[in-house]
Amino acid sequence: MISTLTPTSDRLQQLQTWVTEIHDIYAAAALLYWDRATYMPSQGVAARGRQMALLRQIAHQKMTDDRLGELLANLRSQAGDFAPHSAEASLIEVADRNYQRAVQVPSEFVARFSRHRTDCYDAWARAKEDDNFAIVQPKLEKTLELTQEYASYFSGYDHIADPLIEDVDYGMTVATLRPLFSQLRQELVPIVEAIAACPAPDTSCLQQTFDRQQQLDFTLDLLQQLGYDFSRGRQDESLHPFTTSFSIDDVRITTRVREDDLTEALFSSIHEMGHALYEQGFDRQLEGTPLAEGSSSGVHESQSRLWENLVGRSHQFWKYFYPQLQQKFPQQLADVSLDTFYRAVNNVERSLIRTDADEVTYNLHVMIRFDLELELLEGSLAVRDLPEAWNARYESDLGVRPPSDRLGVLQDIHWYTSNIGAMFQCYTLGNLMSAQLYDAVLKADPNLLENIAAGNFASLHRWLIDNVHQFGCRYTPSELIVKATGAELSIAPFLNYIRGKYSQLYDI
Amino acid sequence: MISTLTPTSDRLQQLQTWVTEIHDIYAAAALLYWDRATYMPSQGVAARGRQMALLRQIAHQKMTDDRLGELLANLRSQAGDFAPHSAEASLIEVADRNYQRAVQVPSEFVARFSRHRTDCYDAWARAKEDDNFAIVQPKLEKTLELTQEYASYFSGYDHIADPLIEDVDYGMTVATLRPLFSQLRQELVPIVEAIAACPAPDTSCLQQTFDRQQQLDFTLDLLQQLGYDFSRGRQDESLHPFTTSFSIDDVRITTRVREDDLTEALFSSIHEMGHALYEQGFDRQLEGTPLAEGSSSGVHESQSRLWENLVGRSHQFWKYFYPQLQQKFPQQLADVSLDTFYRAVNNVERSLIRTDADEVTYNLHVMIRFDLELELLEGSLAVRDLPEAWNARYESDLGVRPPSDRLGVLQDIHWYTSNIGAMFQCYTLGNLMSAQLYDAVLKADPNLLENIAAGNFASLHRWLIDNVHQFGCRYTPSELIVKATGAELSIAPFLNYIRGKYSQLYDI
Repeated sequence: MISTLTPTSDRLQQLQTWVTEIHDIYAAAALLYWDRATYMPSQGVAARGRQMALLRQIAHQKMTDDRLGELLANLRSQAGDFAPHSAEASLIEVADRNYQRAVQVPSEFVARFSRHRTDCYDAWARAKEDDNFAIVQPKLEKTLELTQEYASYFSGYDHIADPLIEDVDYGMTVATLRPLFSQLRQELVPIVEAIAACPAPDTSCLQQTFDRQQQLDFTLDLLQQLGYDFSRGRQDESLHPFTTSFSIDDVRITTRVREDDLTEALFSSIHEMGHALYEQGFDRQLEGTPLAEGSSSGVHESQSRLWENLVGRSHQFWKYFYPQLQQKFPQQLADVSLDTFYRAVNNVERSLIRTDADEVTYNLHVMIRFDLELELLEGSLAVRDLPEAWNARYESDLGVRPPSDRLGVLQDIHWYTSNIGAMFQCYTLGNLMSAQLYDAVLKADPNLLENIAAGNFASLHRWLIDNVHQFGCRYTPSELIVKATGAELSIAPFLNYIRGKYSQLYDI
Repeated sequence: MISTLTPTSDRLQQLQTWVTEIHDIYAAAALLYWDRATYMPSQGVAARGRQMALLRQIAHQKMTDDRLGELLANLRSQAGDFAPHSAEASLIEVADRNYQRAVQVPSEFVARFSRHRTDCYDAWARAKEDDNFAIVQPKLEKTLELTQEYASYFSGYDHIADPLIEDVDYGMTVATLRPLFSQLRQELVPIVEAIAACPAPDTSCLQQTFDRQQQLDFTLDLLQQLGYDFSRGRQDESLHPFTTSFSIDDVRITTRVREDDLTEALFSSIHEMGHALYEQGFDRQLEGTPLAEGSSSGVHESQSRLWENLVGRSHQFWKYFYPQLQQKFPQQLADVSLDTFYRAVNNVERSLIRTDADEVTYNLHVMIRFDLELELLEGSLAVRDLPEAWNARYESDLGVRPPSDRLGVLQDIHWYTSNIGAMFQCYTLGNLMSAQLYDAVLKADPNLLENIAAGNFASLHRWLIDNVHQFGCRYTPSELIVKATGAELSIAPFLNYIRGKYSQLYDI
């Protein structure tokens, strides 16, 4: 036990010990996952799967143990002794919330779903390789059934997706998200259409050949300058970039390099660093507790998108870093102007692949998935009709029709390795929150853009620590947004940002 | 459960499941250790220590659980149904042996000793830095007391060190080791003296500047050619080289590079690979069981020393590899002959540091420690008199007197992070076994040396798999040596090897 939370009773100390053990077993499982994605020799995969499953099972047993339930029942009655949102009150509340949710679901179900997910993932990999949705269709039907069964273990919800959303974006519901998203979509579609009517910028400067190691060196330099603490983190390569942490003092990211596309490693690294700064910024007294987590998936995503897009694709950012980049790649970039480069990294395109999408069209990709998920869960869309529904929505929302399932419904891993539902809303929530938070920083610090143009990110980082990071999940997403920005979450800041930036870029 | 052991009863299946869970928790702890030694960011150390301790505690609980005891009691009564040394009989025997030993020691003691070891390690690090044994002396006194307490939990032994030896070199006792070692020492001292009287070979070719990455590339190439399976392993750098495994399909080594000494990475890599080949060679049906371990520390060391010394320092080996090494380092080695290089890597020197010692003097270093350990445990030597006793023995056995404790009694980590006793005998046992095994291979395969000179290591590797590796710990060290070589362990093969090789090298 190294946490410095001061317990005011033995029970609180007992709780702290108990939850830190759960935290630490999950942290060990997370290291096994990190290692699998980075350095594990290929044949190690079978034993590694077995070992990760075991650690998760041990953690789950600890998380649903009756003794924890009794302890929490006792502590709940004392919770009034602590100030609201104090570390103590929050610990009791969040630990209790996690416990109450965990015990709803029979462990038999957890094991059954876990086995099915491995099956479904394998079928998806084959389906994607063969470009044939039919291979995974029966597995995905089973996933849908299991997701519906999972939701059925929770009661008192308006929409079947609500318990799924609650798992990752606490406090959000279909009833709150649907109007937000539908309004956003209405506003975005005409913006995208207007941009599509303009001449496309020249992006050829990004599609040259860039040495892998030089790219990695550049991102490491960049991350250091942005404030990522390498004594408490590191960057490695993996097939899909991700962030993981084993403690507040060990928060790691991975990136992915493409030698023929300079943006891949660059923006993956900045994106994951945004996630990592969040976790490096948790108050130290939250170490080892369930409070040392992001407030929600959406809030987590807001931190990655803020750095990737609002900062990392801004003119000020490149005013400072572009000379460094030119110096690293003189052959490729010496004759490319800052303006050309800036326009290239902000190219808006109606495309097929979500992960490659620009910040204007990105949310349209997400909302297609969100709507389809709800239809599947409600039973109004059958899994066998999913590919056609997907393609039709791409045509109507983005004006492009996937020529194959591989470029369509099979592109994302999410549904095929987890459940159906509540997998995508966090991305759009993150985008909306990132704009609203950035707006608040700009108001609090009128010199922010000048500082960025001078390579000074300390005041931005400080604001994020003070207003977002330090709290971990002591506040719900809604509470946090109001506390940090003075207003409820809305689509206005995001739309203002997009309109302001892209009307200049595209003369619309 | 991926093991293919065929259970003949549900109980055997239950045992298999139980021990695999223990195995897998230790494997996870081992990955946490590997990561700490290779890639972990510096600040991660506190949480990592907490997490490793937790996993070991969970594994220890599982290992001493009454339910396991009942299961084993039941199975012991059925053990006669299985052929001796069959996978089933061995599993029951070894699992039972581990259980019986684990339950002798109160878990309160395990925790107490574990805490003390961290303290003692810290004090040792400071003592070494300040070159002042007094800093760690009281801690080491406590370690001695705790070691004696540990031994006291076992009964029926002749010598207090026997239970400690039993932990790592099953079946060995002070009564068997003392005469073996004392005879070896008597034979070795005059050989070393004779060599010391000869002119020293020129080793300057090894002490040039060798690029770090080039060295690493060379060792990777070398390991590949020797038969290390990189789809089931990898090599990384760490401060102290070691081998670790998380399954039969993931056995990793580390090495250490010195740019001013070519031998460091070269022989560290070959040494650790010898350990790794052992674990990669376990029969697949032992996966996840306590049988997937070396027969003993000594047998494990025999595999590393066989590759490092008997193979890796042989003339045939370098006849094949030296041209490759010259090609890698033409500037440094183009003008150095094979013979000069061969003599340089076999330089015998009476030196102060065990880990730098050549294969002739190495055992003298070990036996000094072994004897001092026994005296400490018996109470005939006090910890405060240890530095002087150490220095006196170095003077009498090796003709050199440590000018400081840092180069003397403080040099090895073993006593300061573990217990006192049974820490060193495995090195000499390994050397003796390696020579006896190699002798047996040479008899079985008269073309062995020719094959090595032609870069063909397959028949050697095959013999080791068939006669040593595949069995894991299904045989005790003594059984294994007799089975593989047809004779009890003796010092003769080692002395013959040393006499044969060094009489040629030194004209004695």
